[in-house]
Amino acid sequence: MSFRFELIAADADTGARAGVFHTPHGPLLTPVFAPVGTAATVKALSPRDLADLGATLLLANAYHLYLRPGDELIRDLGGLHRFMAWDGPLLTDSGGFQVFSLEDSRIIDQDGVTFRSHLDGSQHRFTPEKAIAIQENLGADIIMCFDECPPPGDYPYNQEALARTNAWAVRCKAAHTRPDQALFGIVQGGIFHDLREDSARHMIELDFAGYAIGGLSVGETTGEMHAVLDRVVPLLPTTKPRYLMGVGTPDDLVNGVMRGVDLFDCVLPTRIGRNGAALVRGGRINLRNARFTGDPSPIASDCACYACQHFSRAYLRHLTRANEILGHHLISLHNVHFLVNLVRRIRESIITGSFAAFADEFLAIHSVESKGVSLD
Amino acid sequence: MSFRFELIAADADTGARAGVFHTPHGPLLTPVFAPVGTAATVKALSPRDLADLGATLLLANAYHLYLRPGDELIRDLGGLHRFMAWDGPLLTDSGGFQVFSLEDSRIIDQDGVTFRSHLDGSQHRFTPEKAIAIQENLGADIIMCFDECPPPGDYPYNQEALARTNAWAVRCKAAHTRPDQALFGIVQGGIFHDLREDSARHMIELDFAGYAIGGLSVGETTGEMHAVLDRVVPLLPTTKPRYLMGVGTPDDLVNGVMRGVDLFDCVLPTRIGRNGAALVRGGRINLRNARFTGDPSPIASDCACYACQHFSRAYLRHLTRANEILGHHLISLHNVHFLVNLVRRIRESIITGSFAAFADEFLAIHSVESKGVSLD
Repeated sequence: MSFRFELIAADADTGARAGVFHTPHGPLLTPVFAPVGTAATVKALSPRDLADLGATLLLANAYHLYLRPGDELIRDLGGLHRFMAWDGPLLTDSGGFQVFSLEDSRIIDQDGVTFRSHLDGSQHRFTPEKAIAIQENLGADIIMCFDECPPPGDYPYNQEALARTNAWAVRCKAAHTRPDQALFGIVQGGIFHDLREDSARHMIELDFAGYAIGGLSVGETTGEMHAVLDRVVPLLPTTKPRYLMGVGTPDDLVNGVMRGVDLFDCVLPTRIGRNGAALVRGGRINLRNARFTGDPSPIASDCACYACQHFSRAYLRHLTRANEILGHHLISLHNVHFLVNLVRRIRESIITGSFAAFADEFLAIHSVESKGVSLD
Repeated sequence: MSFRFELIAADADTGARAGVFHTPHGPLLTPVFAPVGTAATVKALSPRDLADLGATLLLANAYHLYLRPGDELIRDLGGLHRFMAWDGPLLTDSGGFQVFSLEDSRIIDQDGVTFRSHLDGSQHRFTPEKAIAIQENLGADIIMCFDECPPPGDYPYNQEALARTNAWAVRCKAAHTRPDQALFGIVQGGIFHDLREDSARHMIELDFAGYAIGGLSVGETTGEMHAVLDRVVPLLPTTKPRYLMGVGTPDDLVNGVMRGVDLFDCVLPTRIGRNGAALVRGGRINLRNARFTGDPSPIASDCACYACQHFSRAYLRHLTRANEILGHHLISLHNVHFLVNLVRRIRESIITGSFAAFADEFLAIHSVESKGVSLD
């Protein structure tokens, strides 16, 4: 079995656990945070930057790569690893999230979704089989079932969508052929615990290589997200990795690990980085702010990243105001390092038995951010 | 004398020479090509990228840094080296070229130039003393006299402008106080050999640490540029470095070295890189071109740069079409590497006595490009 998940340590006081997920592109130490490379590139960072800052898992989007440059082209060029020059583990989503976001240009039926490209308006169709075929062409180590992600608070819609997602999971599993790719089932059901339980039991019965929890961080409250995790994760087998999709503020990572999540991904560090916002202990600062004009200190004096080891806030503010690419690069680099390093420290604390104390202290400091307040 | 220029080798058949220009930030091996960091950053490249690919000298623009973030701010933060995290030699221009380019928003008088900022329309004034003060605040190793760069073919204008440039050179020399900065005089005079000679003799008389040749590659023909170099360079002292400003196509570099030039700078490699054009043996290719859609080969199979060692033309085309920052980064990196490596090979050929053969072969291959033809 090429995808053995090995548990290294479990926290005594919380659901947190440390593990190793063995993949054809090397062992993945969990918990792990995956930066997002939508179009086969983590925006403004090169693979050597990412390896250098300690990233181990990257995510790419099947929808985007299907449209441009095309999954068959990537297959013909040797697959996504070679295409984007990333030798470590890769994960692709199924395209479901993106397709269902195209509210005004998609038609859903029981068999799949017909939609128009956001690039050129051309018409396309995704079915569970198509989503798997695309992901097999791309060749990531971890791939996802085709699922529907409805607004989290709409019960009838979630019920109806879940029926499709459940049926599509069966078809994805049947369509999946490559033994060097781990197919994950996705638990949906919005904020509704009965639907989430149904979904979890259905996915577990299908026996996937891992389980994702989708449809969170899409509009529900933090409390609702935690309640869903508290309900779903204990149902999942301890022997398989658990992936919380699209979630990645610093406190979300701590709260997720605390509830037993192993994998995370989020565009946050690169997206806010391109807007001049940098993650720091206790929240974030926006380097466009005039108070950094003459500030000789780095983003964070205790940070080991390349940006903090060499550049002042004053310089980063200058780059940001001048809209220089190097500004996007350095702040994104710092932010990805911040999250990767946070999860690395979380893992160490689990192994040394100090996770609960680490989480308490971290969440106390980051309570400002949880309330949506910037330190700017 | 902190700025000793040491001649290592002189080619027997041409004006080419190899040297070492000793600066407070280390020895600079000449000939050398300087990438341009207009706003204290070489666009899309970090200092570690530049050091890694072999760049040794960077240029920054006094005009741009005076306006944003301000030369006094940079001085207060420890100077330009620290600000942009470049430990090697730096060169700044005087701001003259930019100010005189603002055709519709500047008024020239004998004492200086009053102009409006291209950023916000605010009014400013540069004099020779101001240009030196700005450059002393920035603190580059090599700084430039304040000069006027007229259209190369307008004799009366060149004559008039040269009188100002010559007078301003006297004032720049008098205003210059920092012994850790080498002030270069700039030879102007358009395509007119009598004016160029007057200018060269005037600058030599003032005894600068080095001599720049300005006002070339601004609209004149290649033949006219070579004729000016053939006339001016033999007048300059062999004991001082010679800098051909703003010039940097591959064949310009070979032709410049052949005529005795030691330093070059140009925005070309990063500017064309952001448009998807990559320098290759014999010319350039545009990676937006559809013929690269499925091309698994690197930009150049014999190139040692990070981009060519890891990425296909197909991937670079994808990044360029998707307007991904990584595309700008990788193609700029390749192009700067191409020119830096070309000049490194030129230097080696001078030292080993094979420059003339190297130049002959190179220019034969690059004749396509000299005619402005792209291999696209």
